[in-house]
Amino acid sequence: MKLDTKRKKVAIVGAGLVGALWSVILAKRGYIVDVYERRPDFRQAGYIGGRSINLALSERGWKAIEIAGIREKIEAVAIPMPGRMMHGLDGSLTFQPYGEKGQAINSVSRGGLNVELVNIADGHEQVHFHFNQICRGLDLETSAVRFEDGETGHRYTVEADLIFGTDGAFSAVRNTLQKLPRFNYSQHYIEHGYKELTIPPREDGSHRMDTHALHIWPRGHFMLIALPNLDGSFTCTLFLPFEGEESFKNLQTEQQVLAFFKKYFPDTLPLMPTLVEDFFDNPTAALVTVRCSPWNYGEKVLLIGDACHAIVPFFGQGMNAGFEDCTILDGLMDKYDEDWPAIIEEFNASRIEDANAIADLALANFVEMRDKVADPRFLLWKKIEKHLHERFPDEFQSVYSMVSFSHVPYSQALAEVSAHEELFERMLAIPKVDENWKGPEVEAVFKKWLGER
Amino acid sequence: MKLDTKRKKVAIVGAGLVGALWSVILAKRGYIVDVYERRPDFRQAGYIGGRSINLALSERGWKAIEIAGIREKIEAVAIPMPGRMMHGLDGSLTFQPYGEKGQAINSVSRGGLNVELVNIADGHEQVHFHFNQICRGLDLETSAVRFEDGETGHRYTVEADLIFGTDGAFSAVRNTLQKLPRFNYSQHYIEHGYKELTIPPREDGSHRMDTHALHIWPRGHFMLIALPNLDGSFTCTLFLPFEGEESFKNLQTEQQVLAFFKKYFPDTLPLMPTLVEDFFDNPTAALVTVRCSPWNYGEKVLLIGDACHAIVPFFGQGMNAGFEDCTILDGLMDKYDEDWPAIIEEFNASRIEDANAIADLALANFVEMRDKVADPRFLLWKKIEKHLHERFPDEFQSVYSMVSFSHVPYSQALAEVSAHEELFERMLAIPKVDENWKGPEVEAVFKKWLGER
Repeated sequence: MKLDTKRKKVAIVGAGLVGALWSVILAKRGYIVDVYERRPDFRQAGYIGGRSINLALSERGWKAIEIAGIREKIEAVAIPMPGRMMHGLDGSLTFQPYGEKGQAINSVSRGGLNVELVNIADGHEQVHFHFNQICRGLDLETSAVRFEDGETGHRYTVEADLIFGTDGAFSAVRNTLQKLPRFNYSQHYIEHGYKELTIPPREDGSHRMDTHALHIWPRGHFMLIALPNLDGSFTCTLFLPFEGEESFKNLQTEQQVLAFFKKYFPDTLPLMPTLVEDFFDNPTAALVTVRCSPWNYGEKVLLIGDACHAIVPFFGQGMNAGFEDCTILDGLMDKYDEDWPAIIEEFNASRIEDANAIADLALANFVEMRDKVADPRFLLWKKIEKHLHERFPDEFQSVYSMVSFSHVPYSQALAEVSAHEELFERMLAIPKVDENWKGPEVEAVFKKWLGER
Repeated sequence: MKLDTKRKKVAIVGAGLVGALWSVILAKRGYIVDVYERRPDFRQAGYIGGRSINLALSERGWKAIEIAGIREKIEAVAIPMPGRMMHGLDGSLTFQPYGEKGQAINSVSRGGLNVELVNIADGHEQVHFHFNQICRGLDLETSAVRFEDGETGHRYTVEADLIFGTDGAFSAVRNTLQKLPRFNYSQHYIEHGYKELTIPPREDGSHRMDTHALHIWPRGHFMLIALPNLDGSFTCTLFLPFEGEESFKNLQTEQQVLAFFKKYFPDTLPLMPTLVEDFFDNPTAALVTVRCSPWNYGEKVLLIGDACHAIVPFFGQGMNAGFEDCTILDGLMDKYDEDWPAIIEEFNASRIEDANAIADLALANFVEMRDKVADPRFLLWKKIEKHLHERFPDEFQSVYSMVSFSHVPYSQALAEVSAHEELFERMLAIPKVDENWKGPEVEAVFKKWLGER
């Protein structure tokens, strides 16, 4: 069934990153798009900060941005981070590249990128934004969306040929679907919360640390990270258990906070003049993983992005996964000649497994970031990974690279994890491997492993 | 903190099995209890049938019933089922006892039991029922419950010293808590649905099959069961995948239904004169597992029963687990001298693991019921289990018995599963064990296994 001309009215619920980008892609294809957002227009009202984690835009995200035809505009607001900079307790710095020369993930401010995307979308005559409109769920009989005007309290419904729920981890669209029989759903919070902190620019506007890195202070069960902003500042995030010995619960006074930072992050104290104020002004936020299925309701309602697969931020893939949803849907529009029932069916059948895979990978990467990156064995393994990839580019790619620098399905990357762990164990068992990590024994072990696959 | 006299007003949301029984136990202890129920009074309106699965009341349930002091009244409406009666494709019958002589699970009609419990509770002057009152969630600021009168539409809130959410798998109380940060929640549906069918009594009012058994027609990926009722009928339940070759989806016509029953359940056709009518009149219902944590909100709101741990029916433990919640809370009231914050804290800390365990056991038991019970190896193992328990009553109890005939925590029973599977494998490897299942080799293998634990 070819999409007929009548079937071109699209309603998008949520003007966040995925909703805004998706509206641009749909408008490019000729759809008439109305985007409804519960917040007031954050271009005027100001994007509410204080609890954001900077984003790490990588390959999967860029692909969708290219499809939307706006790569140059987004590059202008992104800062490449070719590697991690680890901060030891003694102030020592260790840089660890994420990929090959020229590869980087990119620091982007959530608010800045969202404003940019809404501005770009708003420039399309076929896209209309409706701010301050609170979604009150779906009318299941008619597949219409219920809204309430945040200002007037007026309640109304919107019908459309296609409805996309891009309203995030606490999606109101999904909330209606959750009540349907056979709708599988889970929300799971980890034991850690996070708090946004900041390293302001120097007086001359320059960055106080190396700009081209994602800074990490790995401390075992918790960590601090910092990502650069264009204005010379860094957005920092402290990830810490809510309860326990070292926890948010035990950081209730100025004295406790300062003692904690002095003990674990001494090099940050001179960089964070507003640490105490930030700590007590900014909320402690929770970290959720959301999984569900199906993602559709009938043939015209579809959830995408965090609304159906919110993940923890430790692989920097939340936004990238949401943007990749757009890439995949765009490909399916070509494949099925815009026959939406077929597109929705295939998307639902194939994409959920990948979303669950990146959810698992993100949870596992927290352990890597906060703990393993400080382990010399892990650093050695990273060097060997890099070496193997250079020697055998077609045969070997690290799981990190698959996720961040390729379009290999997430489920395939997840499936590689245990094989790579096996290889890692074998490599580390080679005598004096720390000296001979480029030697013939390493290659021999690798080839044996490859042959067994 | 001793409970002061002001703190005795209790609101229970939901007059189902757990809510009604819990109101009796609380009233016995002197609490003033208001029970709110969304349905009209089902004692007058009639209990809505057509999608119930008969209950199998066992040891854990009886304990709570004894605490309420109403064992005799409930015994009068329960039919003991000391074992399973397996129906082969050829009409052959195999009886398999569930436990020792004198042990039985008990068939109880959900509607009948619910009416009985509400009548008993209503006889207490301290218990008041409010039917047709729809819970609209909690007011989190005040911990009051929001209701809407189903008849007048009047909306109001109820405050109480303690609030119990016993409003089942689709709990409105829990629905409010789900929106809180750090509330973990999952609802997962299995691929099978179920449909209630019936075997009416003979004209003389007697049962058409053996009354004292739970009848099973195990057919691999699906099954039919039948539980006796007091009126001479059996309530039957067909468990079948929603989709696939043998599925509800493929049973759309009278012809298809009759052909399906003729192929797989030929002995039931003469027993079910209203099969076709029942099949198309009764809905196909879904089977959900609900897990969540925490179960409390602050110091005075607590979920119990299906509202926090709905499970699939294959271990016959849904109601029993909910009733055991009451038993445990009753014990904690003694232990903490009715200091409710302490009671709620301990209940929450200790009971969730057991609820998750019975959820897992129930899912696993579906495979046993629909498939394994027809396997001669499994039947042999059941005989060996029984023999070992008779010989070594203190050292060996089957997992089934732990769950159904003991008060061992569910988590402990679940932890035994893999050890018992290991023993089973070793037993079945003994040469000619089918002949020598009471022999010295069996005991030797058992003692070795026991010694390794």
